[in-house]
Amino acid sequence: MTGFVSFVSSGPGDPELLTLKAVDRLRRADVVLYDDLSSGPILDYAAQAELVSVGKRAGRTSPAQHQVSRLLVEYAGRYARVVRLKSGDAGIFGRLEEELHALSSAHISFEIIPGVTSACAAAAAFGLPLTRRFEARRLQFITGTDYSGQVPSDLRWQALTDPEAITVIYMGRRTFSNLADKLIEHGLPKDTPAYMMASVSGPEQTYHQTTVWALANELRTASASKPTLILYGPLVNYGKRPSN
Amino acid sequence: MTGFVSFVSSGPGDPELLTLKAVDRLRRADVVLYDDLSSGPILDYAAQAELVSVGKRAGRTSPAQHQVSRLLVEYAGRYARVVRLKSGDAGIFGRLEEELHALSSAHISFEIIPGVTSACAAAAAFGLPLTRRFEARRLQFITGTDYSGQVPSDLRWQALTDPEAITVIYMGRRTFSNLADKLIEHGLPKDTPAYMMASVSGPEQTYHQTTVWALANELRTASASKPTLILYGPLVNYGKRPSN
Repeated sequence: MTGFVSFVSSGPGDPELLTLKAVDRLRRADVVLYDDLSSGPILDYAAQAELVSVGKRAGRTSPAQHQVSRLLVEYAGRYARVVRLKSGDAGIFGRLEEELHALSSAHISFEIIPGVTSACAAAAAFGLPLTRRFEARRLQFITGTDYSGQVPSDLRWQALTDPEAITVIYMGRRTFSNLADKLIEHGLPKDTPAYMMASVSGPEQTYHQTTVWALANELRTASASKPTLILYGPLVNYGKRPSN
Repeated sequence: MTGFVSFVSSGPGDPELLTLKAVDRLRRADVVLYDDLSSGPILDYAAQAELVSVGKRAGRTSPAQHQVSRLLVEYAGRYARVVRLKSGDAGIFGRLEEELHALSSAHISFEIIPGVTSACAAAAAFGLPLTRRFEARRLQFITGTDYSGQVPSDLRWQALTDPEAITVIYMGRRTFSNLADKLIEHGLPKDTPAYMMASVSGPEQTYHQTTVWALANELRTASASKPTLILYGPLVNYGKRPSN
């Protein structure tokens, strides 16, 4: 048989931030291939499905992407309804392309269910608009690490030091101090507001409001830990003010 | 009394792309202030609420933002549970800041429920990953118009002509040919892949795959119409290939 694969975006972690469509696909799934970040109570919706962990997590040895893609094709040969659960929005830093390519090559049909990307959830949780009408009309998302775990070498400094853009760094905790040094070297003011948020939307959600320079110093010895987002730029915080 | 305001992101339009949390807030709302783009079947969830249109739509005369903010404060003085429904994700080009500011000034408590931003929904619908592991590690969102309806004058051309970034333009149909002329003048190859999508996730969803140069020429006489997203950059389409 040939199954149908639904790439389902799980959102940032809070099961209440699943879309109705994501819940539907989980409920009807025969098998769910999931990562560490899209597990926990979210999987409760897939009560009838076989659950297969293909977990990848910062800093740990993880199954190679080609193995995940191979598994996906294999399961689509055995089950009618395959869900590939991906944290956040599947299309943003989810390595979706590799898996789409594998399915296309094997002539397996698929759909993609979009979801709440972590940047939106983090900003919402802490009262930070991601765009500002006059001050921040460009919003950009980057990863803090390339395939080798280092700060990507091909970053565009003019784009990243633009005083009128808000930047969100996914998976950037461990490399942030290196990145920040380069940003400052390329003209980003040291006192640019920066926010670090971990375990967004989960019970252990944390929040830290600081500056690019101070955060870089705090993270000089950072190890990989909980999934972390870092935001910097002309951000204004309406959520966590002393008066609230 | 003083009410509590929930900013609820409605997603791109398909009611199935609401989050569970959004549905919950709509169901329990006493009043819902909504825009044109977050209406239709989505409002069916708010069966018990008074519905107030504060619609704004490209090209039409719209209530001034300060009037919307004032209304929001007024309703929060009369109802316990106020929902301010915003299309896509409220934090991205939703003019959230002005309304947060009004509520903060009036000491009204609020929460923000994040949602599926239109870029993610459009990309998912057409099989386009928004980031690529080696080729596109930066994703950026801009608006095609500033407060006066023109191409914003403060765009960073190096950021927008980066061959390794994927750019999504919100509300950019009417001004795209002007913008594209400038992008090409600043070095963006004319044959850069471009995609235009309208009424994303709705029954009248349309999709057009072309190049930046060709799209600019097609849109020279474009008027404001349905809500449109334009994507360009090193995009690869796994969804709408001839073989599917």
